[in-house]
Amino acid sequence: MTLTVQDIGEQGLLKRVQAFCPRAVVGDDAAVLPTEPGKSIVITSDVLVDGVHFSDRTTPPEAAGWRAIAANLSDLAAMGASPLGITVGLGLPKTTPVEWVEKLYQGMADCLNQYGGALVGGDLCRSPVITVAITAFGQVDPNRVIQRSTAQPGDAIFVTGFHGSSRAGLEMLLHSDPAPERASLIRAHQYPIPRFDIPQLTSRVSGMDSSDGLADAVLQICRMSGVGAKLDRALIPIDPALKQWVTPEKAMEWALYGGEDFQLVLCLPQEEAKLWVEQVSGSAIVGQITSDLAVRLIDSSGEFSDRTLSLDQGFQHFQK
Amino acid sequence: MTLTVQDIGEQGLLKRVQAFCPRAVVGDDAAVLPTEPGKSIVITSDVLVDGVHFSDRTTPPEAAGWRAIAANLSDLAAMGASPLGITVGLGLPKTTPVEWVEKLYQGMADCLNQYGGALVGGDLCRSPVITVAITAFGQVDPNRVIQRSTAQPGDAIFVTGFHGSSRAGLEMLLHSDPAPERASLIRAHQYPIPRFDIPQLTSRVSGMDSSDGLADAVLQICRMSGVGAKLDRALIPIDPALKQWVTPEKAMEWALYGGEDFQLVLCLPQEEAKLWVEQVSGSAIVGQITSDLAVRLIDSSGEFSDRTLSLDQGFQHFQK
Repeated sequence: MTLTVQDIGEQGLLKRVQAFCPRAVVGDDAAVLPTEPGKSIVITSDVLVDGVHFSDRTTPPEAAGWRAIAANLSDLAAMGASPLGITVGLGLPKTTPVEWVEKLYQGMADCLNQYGGALVGGDLCRSPVITVAITAFGQVDPNRVIQRSTAQPGDAIFVTGFHGSSRAGLEMLLHSDPAPERASLIRAHQYPIPRFDIPQLTSRVSGMDSSDGLADAVLQICRMSGVGAKLDRALIPIDPALKQWVTPEKAMEWALYGGEDFQLVLCLPQEEAKLWVEQVSGSAIVGQITSDLAVRLIDSSGEFSDRTLSLDQGFQHFQK
Repeated sequence: MTLTVQDIGEQGLLKRVQAFCPRAVVGDDAAVLPTEPGKSIVITSDVLVDGVHFSDRTTPPEAAGWRAIAANLSDLAAMGASPLGITVGLGLPKTTPVEWVEKLYQGMADCLNQYGGALVGGDLCRSPVITVAITAFGQVDPNRVIQRSTAQPGDAIFVTGFHGSSRAGLEMLLHSDPAPERASLIRAHQYPIPRFDIPQLTSRVSGMDSSDGLADAVLQICRMSGVGAKLDRALIPIDPALKQWVTPEKAMEWALYGGEDFQLVLCLPQEEAKLWVEQVSGSAIVGQITSDLAVRLIDSSGEFSDRTLSLDQGFQHFQK
């Protein structure tokens, strides 16, 4: 028989999940963490719901835990911040297997161990649906915050890596078609990597992460900065495994609107962007910021005609 | 027809709830907040689920919002911290009325306006059940953190106010019996007050808040500090409206195990505790810390016989 959370009760479950926390933070009303002098704190939150954001069909509990942390760390990376810690609020049906919960925490701990930050607190409660609420916090030099609102015409649009992979991986998992030659796509969906590996800045940079897709990121940056952009589809990095699997149109749709690739989309002077491309493996310059307000997708290879991008095509929650 | 979240979509809902945030923090991947030099940050989280922690029957949305914030601010107060901000992760069924969501945020904003801290971020998502995940963060002088583990034999046990009121208020609301002469109990349940109003410390203090009941608080402090306690039931502050309503036994049960009164339970030297009682209206010394490890409930009035308290009698989630 499977041991469930109702078998061991709240105190029993608490003991098991506290094994994933540093000892010093367990046992008070709240966690206390020192910050470095002069740094500002950075806070971001996500709520993930079983059947909406993850499911056992596409994400085993370790992967659900990893993704939840990676998504939040990615937001910190997109602010130029380094991670300090996270809290996890977990709502669980009584019949949830204890093993499921432990694997979820294992996935979270694996991601934190690799990219920084500790699990410093949280809350366990009963809920009719598994709900994972994550808050991540980090610190940043207030003079080095990466904002969405400071892109300038002429800036290069730099991306840290492949787009469309996560959506493709999800598709394969949903249709139970995990071909070994496309394992990289499944990995991109289940175990995305927060991109803390960008070079130290020597000038200004603007941007965000591509959690809602590359098109959304560019459109948000342009709207907040009062600028436009020209994206070149021939330059957008797409995993060869994805190119081989679907039509160029489908691959581009997933790259632009699929979301959850958790790459950084950064706007910075061309010269510096070129140096960054040399330093970050898999990265690319995919276009440039324009003073004209439209966001256009062009094709320097000449195969596809130009398109204007808009937010309506992107992912929206609460859709009818 | 009632306007629901599915009618206005995620972007529409986002615009409405962002009206409750300071302008500066809206629009990036994460919120950035300065801290004072030398202070540590303090973090605490709660997840509240419709039908488990609140319901329209007992808590209108304004009250659900207020309570969610007050509970988290109370954790900050119990650490000796002052509030900086909160994030709100909100899971909503598609059919949730927009007005419900706005009233929830209004209740949260009212509490924050009164006790400090700003709404600096969050997440909106679809969920089969309304879920409110709150993370509150504050700052504290690392030399003035209030921990559970430092109570010493001889310390007075000081409480900031009434116990049992919240449980009594819930009972009235559940049985639709909101007598006007007991309005204070309903108010205690719906609009609890985080206790930031304790005097500046001149010596050491240990303690926590009484979110899970007075007995739980004293037992936790004793376990973490390796001490015991003697609580005098004749000294525990109970609202006269509650005393008039139920038997002394029932009132004491709610005071000890009802929970959610969000008072502070603090252990400090007797002399200082006496000064505090004069300065904090409604507060009281309810007993003292002992080197003997038991936690006993005595009765200086002689009416009731002594009892030993244990955690088993308190509130547990995931109960069968």
